[in-house]
Amino acid sequence: MHWQPKRQAALSLHTQIVTWFTDNIRSGDFPPGMKCPPQRVLAVQFGVNRSTVHTAMEELQANGLIESIVGKGTFICADPWQALLSQPKWQRYIDTSIHKPNMDTIQLINDYEQRSDMIRLGTGELATTLLPTASLEQSLAHITLSPRALGYSEPQGSIALREALCVHLQKRGIHTTPRNILIVSGALQALQLIALGLLERGSLVFHEEASYLQSIHPFQSAGMQLLGRRLTQIDKPSMQAMLQTRQGVCYVMPTLHNPTGYSWSEAEKQTFYTMCQQLSLPIIEDDVYEALQFDGTSIRPLKANDRSGHVLYIGSISKALSAGLRIGWIVAPEAVIQRLADVKMQTDYGSSALSQAVVTHWLTSGLYDASVDTLRQQLQQRARYTETLLHMYLRDVASWQSPTGGYYIWLRFHEPVIQKSLFLQLIQRGVLINPGYMYQPNDFHHIRLSFSYASEAELKTGIQLLSQLVNEALLSPKKKRPD
Amino acid sequence: MHWQPKRQAALSLHTQIVTWFTDNIRSGDFPPGMKCPPQRVLAVQFGVNRSTVHTAMEELQANGLIESIVGKGTFICADPWQALLSQPKWQRYIDTSIHKPNMDTIQLINDYEQRSDMIRLGTGELATTLLPTASLEQSLAHITLSPRALGYSEPQGSIALREALCVHLQKRGIHTTPRNILIVSGALQALQLIALGLLERGSLVFHEEASYLQSIHPFQSAGMQLLGRRLTQIDKPSMQAMLQTRQGVCYVMPTLHNPTGYSWSEAEKQTFYTMCQQLSLPIIEDDVYEALQFDGTSIRPLKANDRSGHVLYIGSISKALSAGLRIGWIVAPEAVIQRLADVKMQTDYGSSALSQAVVTHWLTSGLYDASVDTLRQQLQQRARYTETLLHMYLRDVASWQSPTGGYYIWLRFHEPVIQKSLFLQLIQRGVLINPGYMYQPNDFHHIRLSFSYASEAELKTGIQLLSQLVNEALLSPKKKRPD
Ligand SMILES: Cc1ncc(COP(=O)(O)O)c(C=O)c1O
Ligand SMILES: Cc1ncc(COP(=O)(O)O)c(C=O)c1O
Repeated sequence: MHWQPKRQAALSLHTQIVTWFTDNIRSGDFPPGMKCPPQRVLAVQFGVNRSTVHTAMEELQANGLIESIVGKGTFICADPWQALLSQPKWQRYIDTSIHKPNMDTIQLINDYEQRSDMIRLGTGELATTLLPTASLEQSLAHITLSPRALGYSEPQGSIALREALCVHLQKRGIHTTPRNILIVSGALQALQLIALGLLERGSLVFHEEASYLQSIHPFQSAGMQLLGRRLTQIDKPSMQAMLQTRQGVCYVMPTLHNPTGYSWSEAEKQTFYTMCQQLSLPIIEDDVYEALQFDGTSIRPLKANDRSGHVLYIGSISKALSAGLRIGWIVAPEAVIQRLADVKMQTDYGSSALSQAVVTHWLTSGLYDASVDTLRQQLQQRARYTETLLHMYLRDVASWQSPTGGYYIWLRFHEPVIQKSLFLQLIQRGVLINPGYMYQPNDFHHIRLSFSYASEAELKTGIQLLSQLVNEALLSPKKKRPD
Repeated sequence: MHWQPKRQAALSLHTQIVTWFTDNIRSGDFPPGMKCPPQRVLAVQFGVNRSTVHTAMEELQANGLIESIVGKGTFICADPWQALLSQPKWQRYIDTSIHKPNMDTIQLINDYEQRSDMIRLGTGELATTLLPTASLEQSLAHITLSPRALGYSEPQGSIALREALCVHLQKRGIHTTPRNILIVSGALQALQLIALGLLERGSLVFHEEASYLQSIHPFQSAGMQLLGRRLTQIDKPSMQAMLQTRQGVCYVMPTLHNPTGYSWSEAEKQTFYTMCQQLSLPIIEDDVYEALQFDGTSIRPLKANDRSGHVLYIGSISKALSAGLRIGWIVAPEAVIQRLADVKMQTDYGSSALSQAVVTHWLTSGLYDASVDTLRQQLQQRARYTETLLHMYLRDVASWQSPTGGYYIWLRFHEPVIQKSLFLQLIQRGVLINPGYMYQPNDFHHIRLSFSYASEAELKTGIQLLSQLVNEALLSPKKKRPD
């Protein structure tokens, strides 16, 4: 028994142990009646906690593969075949199913994020200290529920929330009506609904070269093709040619882009919008960071000047209030909204009435604006502090632009050192990063450094460690270099 | 201008007016510069409210197709072509997209349900008078949010809720662990996740002859084939033959079935489970009505005796507490749960933390059980009253089984009178029904009569009207008969 479970695999340790036992029983290597070593021995051999072995053995027993005999020990069942043969081949089901699995790197990040001792330099969410948990909890006492709130929702979501959003969006220069709004369970779901309800298989989805879209799969899983482009510099003829044979759509983030943090200039927005108009190309404008411009000003979104109904505008409260409430919105021409509302009703019958009531309350009472004001200042402070650290530890090997809002610094290393191996080494040392290749295939130059999550102390330790490992990689003869 | 919008169409009246104007402008029938009749005239011509015309004209103006000149009136724009040409062809996008539109009959039901003056004899949800709105509102003051609750959720959902569910499910004879549970936004989403995360395109989805599954599209939209069967009577060889070439799964509701309200006997469950085991066929067990057995007893689900991990068990609080909270769960082997959790994170990043906290509170405080006890009695009373009405008004033309729980009576008319035309006539008279053909293609014998939504007075008026129209249809020489 020289095998050991892998700590960095997507499957949990005990699941790996269960699979390993099952495979050995199936192959006949562990024959019926064989006695298993005691759990404490197995724990040592596997290099895991005894509780992990215990969990695995419980599951093997539930599956009818091993049995305990009091006073004697644990044995492979006399007839494990029945259990083995009759189980549905779940893994085959999983492997051949439609939706893509998450990128390996992202699954690892998700797993390690569950551990409280990791320093998270990449996380795209707010630290618990930045979340208005106490005031949200207090505000619950002031929520009133309409008599129909506990029933199934109207297809487009709570009318009170849609009205509140009309007012909110006016500050962004968007003048719309409740009929043009669909409430969704976060911006991610908005993308999912657009993929299923508006595009045909094989459609082209243009996006910026480095893009959040590369890190998620709503479009690829629905059979669409992702195409990274410099969208602020016109490449009309080539796009036109491609759109002759296929439907298309363009996904952009002109304000506080994820992962770069950049915002487009007015001229870039104008050029881009005109191009899309000429191509009759719909635009998905993802505006989830809009509230987090440090100077409190608001950059006008494309949607504010959209006279020809090209823009499907997406917003969310995830980045400025709470991601756990799962509330976002789409603003679009009415026929599109009705279609997406139908698909939403068909997939989950609407978003949580409670979350909708709370967001309505926060928007209309002023609680939201006040909370975002504070947050902006806190984020700006964190951004400044992070830049100080970068100057101290990474100035020689990397460059970056000062962030003007949001959560991120798009840190560019002069050398292509941000390889998967570095990502894994950092995990071993307790540090999680979001490498550039999550957002752009084969980008080994960047890290999306987030100043929204880790504490000041963690940022310091994390960036120091990063600097150390990068410098080691730069010195190592094994490092990969382009040519 | 003899055209009028259709009241029973899927599109709202003002959208139909906008489309009609746009088509006429595009075709040149309404040339640039043409003066439009005043809104009050249009309202009379179209047979709609003036506010409907107003809304339509606002939208046409926003689209750049008409313009108002103060003191002169409203005109088709001098150059509407620019606006017409450059708009993305939204309708084409919608028509060619992946997810199926809702059945026409269901879209009509959804639309008319928005009107407060309809009598709803088919609605599968609780009347507002049966919802514990006041006590839920009060309970909000007692909700405590963990520091991480407002952030993105763990992939499988709140651990507190999963632990509470383990206790809750024990009452159903299901012994499971938090690792085997995934929290979802309602049972419908569970089906959606299984379709995307566990099945390949072309898979076979077996279900009972009349089935809720026919009225929704998660599987068909993902390219799967639905096959209605008598599942409690073995037809193993034919299923086996089909499963040689394709993956399959079986969707069943052994407890308080939708739409029939029936429950399987222990023998039927045993036979069915053994067959699936022999076929290595996974079972989706939809158990959303489990709490609503009138006599308060609990019929054991298949999952309680599932020793070989065949059953994907689905539950929800929608039917016994609140559909608006959007909380449901899947219980399944761990590898399956991990896969479905990954797909869930990829499509909406988890369910509302607030809804999860409230459901946890209701389950652990005893509020849930107390509320369900009351509800059961109220539903039983409504069922009895409804049966009295059926005896009075429909005894001669229809038959039914006394319900033992849930929301529904599966009313069988001796003649195939429940045609779409009858459904539409009833709408004209202000009554909404769920015809049998929603659940089984070409079933014109049944209505799913719901006693959970309409008030006693509405049930009476509605059933009287139903009886009247059915009797008229039976007398009419035009009625369709088989042969
Ligand atoms: C650019 C962008 N769009 C959408 C989302 C999803 O946000 P939500 O929580 O509203 O689904 C995120 C969150 O990471 C994001 O960064
Ligand atoms: C049989 C059945 N399954 C699932 C659902 C969906 O329930 P939920 O509100 O939990 O998504 C319903 C609701 O109509 C139902 O009747």
